[in-house]
This record gives sequence, C-alpha cells and structure tokens, in this order.
Amino acid sequence: MINPRKPAGFHEFLPSEQLSFDAMVAVIKASYESHGYTPIETPALELAEVLHAKEGGETAKQGYQFTKGDTKLALRFDLTVPLARYVAEHYHDLALPFRRYQIQNVWRAEKPQAGRYRQFYQCDIDIIGTNSATADADILITMNGTMQALGLEKSLIRLNNRLLMSGIIIALKAEKNNTEILRLLDKMDSQGPTKLKKSLLDIGLDKKQADTLVKVAGLKGSIGQITKALKSEDLYNTNIDEGLGRLRRICELLKAAGLSSKNYQIDLGIVRGLDYYTGMVYEIILTDKKEIGSVGGGGRYDNLIGYYKKDNVPGVGGSIGLSRLFAALSEESKDGQGCPADVMVTALSSDLLPYAFKVAATLRVTGINVFIYPKDGKIAKQLSYADKLGIPLVAVCGEEEEKKTKVTIKNLETGEQETVSLKQAAKFCKS
Amino acid sequence: MINPRKPAGFHEFLPSEQLSFDAMVAVIKASYESHGYTPIETPALELAEVLHAKEGGETAKQGYQFTKGDTKLALRFDLTVPLARYVAEHYHDLALPFRRYQIQNVWRAEKPQAGRYRQFYQCDIDIIGTNSATADADILITMNGTMQALGLEKSLIRLNNRLLMSGIIIALKAEKNNTEILRLLDKMDSQGPTKLKKSLLDIGLDKKQADTLVKVAGLKGSIGQITKALKSEDLYNTNIDEGLGRLRRICELLKAAGLSSKNYQIDLGIVRGLDYYTGMVYEIILTDKKEIGSVGGGGRYDNLIGYYKKDNVPGVGGSIGLSRLFAALSEESKDGQGCPADVMVTALSSDLLPYAFKVAATLRVTGINVFIYPKDGKIAKQLSYADKLGIPLVAVCGEEEEKKTKVTIKNLETGEQETVSLKQAAKFCKS
Repeated sequence: MINPRKPAGFHEFLPSEQLSFDAMVAVIKASYESHGYTPIETPALELAEVLHAKEGGETAKQGYQFTKGDTKLALRFDLTVPLARYVAEHYHDLALPFRRYQIQNVWRAEKPQAGRYRQFYQCDIDIIGTNSATADADILITMNGTMQALGLEKSLIRLNNRLLMSGIIIALKAEKNNTEILRLLDKMDSQGPTKLKKSLLDIGLDKKQADTLVKVAGLKGSIGQITKALKSEDLYNTNIDEGLGRLRRICELLKAAGLSSKNYQIDLGIVRGLDYYTGMVYEIILTDKKEIGSVGGGGRYDNLIGYYKKDNVPGVGGSIGLSRLFAALSEESKDGQGCPADVMVTALSSDLLPYAFKVAATLRVTGINVFIYPKDGKIAKQLSYADKLGIPLVAVCGEEEEKKTKVTIKNLETGEQETVSLKQAAKFCKS
Repeated sequence: MINPRKPAGFHEFLPSEQLSFDAMVAVIKASYESHGYTPIETPALELAEVLHAKEGGETAKQGYQFTKGDTKLALRFDLTVPLARYVAEHYHDLALPFRRYQIQNVWRAEKPQAGRYRQFYQCDIDIIGTNSATADADILITMNGTMQALGLEKSLIRLNNRLLMSGIIIALKAEKNNTEILRLLDKMDSQGPTKLKKSLLDIGLDKKQADTLVKVAGLKGSIGQITKALKSEDLYNTNIDEGLGRLRRICELLKAAGLSSKNYQIDLGIVRGLDYYTGMVYEIILTDKKEIGSVGGGGRYDNLIGYYKKDNVPGVGGSIGLSRLFAALSEESKDGQGCPADVMVTALSSDLLPYAFKVAATLRVTGINVFIYPKDGKIAKQLSYADKLGIPLVAVCGEEEEKKTKVTIKNLETGEQETVSLKQAAKFCKS
C-alpha cells in the first residue's frame, strides 16, 4: 500500500472550496469577456530556452525544468512570457491589436508559505500591438471591473509610470544607480521609509537625493496632487513631463468610464520588480484587507516580444493572482462538502429505481441539476447524505408515487414535503 | 533572438478555435453538473511513486517524470489515478458515495500523431464508494446525455462486462490464458476476426475455443439477443449469469431514463485495455463518424483505491477525450480570428476617446460584451479590424454624437447604421 499524498507545496480543494473557487473563475471569465478579451490557452510545458529567453538564471532556478530525451522542458512560471512566444509564433495569424485573456495554472518551485503554493492560478489580460494610453486605460478598467464583479468593492489600483520614475531619478542626477534605486523603491511597502533611506545611502546616494526619493516614494493622490508635489520638489524634465502626461490621459479615460479616486490613485511607491516593464505599472490592493498585500498588478512592457521577433511589438497587461486571492478571502470551512445538484432523487426500494431514473430524467430536461442516490440504503441515510452535501430538495419515489406517476418533494431546510404529479414536479422544485 | 516555438507534440489554438473549444468545455461542464456531479481539480504534478503505484513500468515510461531536489515528480497521465489518491487522502472529509467530475489536462510522452498530442484534455466523471448498478447506469446516462448536449446525436455506447467475459473464458476452459485473451479481444476492432483467430491459436487455444471467442467478440445487440446467442453457444456458468444479470439491470435503468438502442448496445467486442477494470466496461463511438474510433469510455474498477487504502473502495467512471474529439470534429478553419465581443466602440478622433469610454461603460453594465478599439487609427481600418474578429456591431462616436449624447450603431453584416441616444443604445444593440 502506498501512502496517498501530494508533493510538498501543492494544494487541492475539497468539493465545497472547489465550487467557490470555480464560481470566482466564472466571474473573472465573464468579466474579461464583457470587456471583449478573447481566451487562449498555452501548453504547460515550454522549451526551456524559449521560456527563459528573457529571464535568465533567476526564474530558471525557481522553475520546474527537466530533460526528456534530448529536450530541455520547463513548466511555465507565468502567463506573460508564453503569451510573448504565442504572439511571435502566430504573428501572421493574429489580428493586431491582440486582446487576450488566459486563466491557467503556473508553477514555481518556491518555498511554500501559507496561501502560496507551487502551483497556482493566474488570470491575465493583455493587449499586444499598441502603445496607446487607450490600451493602458482599458486594462485598468477591466481589472477594476473584475474586482467589482467579484464583490471586492474596496479594491484600489495603485498606479505609477516607469518613465516618470526614470525622469525623477535623472532629475536627481542618480541615473547611474537607476536599476538599484528601482529595486529598493519596490521594497518600500514592506521595509518602510527609514530602511529605504539607509539602503539608498548605502548604494552611494547623498542625503538630499535619498531624502527626496523617500519623499517621492511616499507620494499618493490624484494626478493634480502628484504634479503639484513634484513641482514643489523642483523635479522636472522631459521624462517627468511625458510620464505625468501619460498618467493624466489614463486618469481622464478612467474617469470617463466611471472610475473614481475610490478605485485608483497615483502612487509613486509602486515600481514592480519585473524588469520588463517600460511604462505604466500598477498593483491592486483591497483597502479593507491591506494585510493581504497585492492581489493583482501589471504594466506596460514594450520590449518583451522583441526576444522572439525582429520587429518589436509593444504590450500592456495585468494579472489577478487568483489562488492567493481565494486563499486570503476564504475562511477555513468546517465542512468540505458541496454539490451543484438542486435535487436528489431517492427510491424507497430497489424495485422503484427504474421509476426514480424516469423522475430524474424528467426533471433534468427542464434545467434542474439532479441525480439519483447511487447506493441502496435506508431513506434516513439517503436524506442525511443530501443534507451533508447541502442539496435543498429530495424527490422521494415510493410505490404510491409510482402508481400515480407522482413524486414527493421534501424540502430539507424546512422539513416540509408535498406530493405532486411528475408533470408538475419541475415547476414545484423551481418555485 | 530566440526562435519562438513549442515543444514537439504540443498544441495550442488560435482564438477562433479556442472559443469553439471553450464552448464545448462549457457544455460538458453544464451537463456533468446537471447530472449532479461536483467538480474537483488535482495538481498537475504528483509524487512519481504515488502516481505509478498501480501501473508500474509501462505508464511510467509514457509519462513525464523528473527529479526536483530529492523528490521524484510526475505529470499526471490520466485523471483516474489522481482521483484514487484524492479519495484515499481525503477519505474522512468526503461524503460517500463521492460523485465528482474533473476537466483537466493530462500529459503523455507518446509519439505525436494527427489529432493526438502530448498534452490533452480529459473530462471525467466517477462515482466512488458503491458497487451498485445504479451507479453504473448513472455514469452511462451522464455520458450519453453529455454527447447529446454536444449535439452528437449519433453517439453509441458499446457496453460490456468483464465478469461476463471471464465467465465465457472459464466456460471455454481457457482461464489460464485469461489476461492474454482479453488483450487480444481488445484488438478485435482494429485487427479483425481473421487475425484475432490466428492470435488466439498462437497462444495455445484449440480451434473450437478460438472460433467461439471470435464469434463471441462479434456479438452486438440487445441484452435479450446477447443472452440468446450465448445460450445457443452452450455458454453458461455463475459468472456469465451474474454478468448478464448486471447488464440486464443496467439496461432496464437506461431505458427508464429514456435511452434506447440508438444510444447503447451490448457489444462483447469491448474489453478496454486498462487492467484495473473489474465489471462494466464501455466505449463511445459516433456511428456517423466511425473512423474517429472511441471518443470516450470507462468502466468499473473495484480495486484501484486499494493501492492507497487498507479498506478497498469500489469505483466506476468514464472519460471523454475532449482534445481528440474536438480535433476530429473541427474542420481546419481558414481564419483563426474570433472574439467574444458583441460591440466594438470606435472614436472618430482621439479627443472623442473619453466619450467612447463612457459609451462602452454604459453598454457593458447592461450585459453587452464591448471594448474600445485600442489604437489610434482611421475608421476604415477600425471597421476592418472588427470585421476580421467577427464582431457584429460597431458603435461610432463622432463629434455630433458626443454633443447630443448619442451613438451611431453600425451593423457590419448588413451595412445598415442608425444614430440612437446613448440611453437607447443598449436596447438597440440587443434587438
């Protein structure tokens, strides 16, 4: 006998959780489609050299990589790099701009933590083939709309622009430390301003530079407020102008789509770690559940597809970390049971099973989710089974019922029951 | 630059195909739920020793197996073995009988052929925890109902019983060759009766035994016809009786649920290769597309969970090979484009984009799938884009429209257009 167990860091749901999870997937899918994104899926396995074209050693180390025959294969670690490969491979078969969504698992061989697993779902949207602010705004509107559709009213998009940040770093004459500065700013949320300042001094910035950067990283507000704040710090150059202009345009479009400062704000503390971002970057938090941290995010990456294609193609997108979001939202359930059935049919003796099958078929064609208790067993045991699964109604088939082509519908919540004709049964169950 | 390509034997869809594929998944999911099965998903990776507990060398060779750290991992090659592990692992958290469905990818490192890939979807249903004929019938009714829901009216379940076959082999006094005989009978469909007879003689059966088995393997029909035919061959013993009795009961329940001989027949040529089957076995073919071969199948396996659990638990199930079915049904499409949007919004100048965002948001809240053309571009180019994606309606936002809070709805199929108030626009688009 083999001890039945999963590999460490892998997770699966009991039925009730799976039903809740699937319901979230359905909401996200419907929301992405209501914003006109088209679905694709890519294979779980990619050629390692293709998958790690951009990322090199770091993601390769986190990845599941192995050799089969002569081929180095790797499980995808995100959905953006496979998209870049997909667009480059099918370039002449796609109408550009290509607006796609993708809801699939990704794998990372990271150290498992609470709510973080080695296999998890990401739900991505991307627009490939334009560097327009329209596309940037479209992504943000879709992300916000999806959060709202999930009932997460307190979701907030924290929005920034890499171009603006580079402008600020140039204005501070610190551009030779650009990458390190961005890397440190990305940790501002978790480490706080004091540690950030120390780190900035450590990499060789002077006190004024460090002070200004810490101040800048703490700026949040409307585009008007941010513009004013930067002016008062005497920060200006073409990049800053351009970055602010782009953010201003995006905010204008968000506002036109009905979003308000409750849904988004400019936040210069948002940088995003992945170094393929070139323009807009953002993260989404739930202001009533800040402790969860970011539940989604993304940005503009105008060079990524260039790793696979001579002529580069700009892109912008975003991702909801669904597995993590689900883990953070769902309470530990006491009971793992669940079932999508509305009605369970039960036969009072095995002679009555053919009639029970007829009853189930009759109900099912009307759109009712229904099944027959699949085992011989006492009625009390059958009712307790339906109750455990949370099925609201049981259709009891006894001799009298069969003789008169009737069925007794028992409501497990109220305990009430009524015998109705088989013809009326569906209507009765739905009422 | 890296040449963008997938590993050999892996496949992905262009948007139009993905939309058709997703529509099939949605039908199967809804059908499984209408029969009261509850969804689960299991991780793609399992511990190799757990996954290959039963199958040993053969499936291990076909599988993707690798070592990460000290752990031997393997991608699942079907959904039945992970289910057995799941049930054993979560035994005390599940209400039995456990009726679940699972629609996920599996991986096999087989030689790629047309329509057969190394990653493909299976859509499984199983009932764990009862050896009742009710459960057997339930599985068959669900498989048939799902085929009908997919519009495959000519689907036929070819039904047999392993117990019956063992009985026949015993009656022929050939039981010492039981396994080899079943293996050979399984090839009857592809190799034909002459070759089968020769093979049976080759393994040491005498002419009468071989002749009877070839005749038996060709028997198809109603339970009455099969019973009569076996009697006329002088084949009877307890196993045969029991096997026929079980099939008779299943047929009675199928009939009660409204299935007819158009939907199923007993077919003693069906054996199924996997040696974990212990009772009912079946395959599904499309009688108007016989060349495809089996599009689904399954059976009863009463010992599988015993590999992971001291007390054994019986099971019965079935699987639709969706990727293969989809490949067989879909014609090569000339155009890979597709989009779930009903309406594309276009602005006649970039000044009008905020109004376009307002229009899109207004339409979307009414349940219309809508997006804004994400690039600046001439109206003719925008219309041609919508046309390519197969989007039926375009909502044009010009200066006049904005001034009067109107929008011009253009039907790309008929060429007709009408300017309506923004309030009326949703109703107009839906009509």
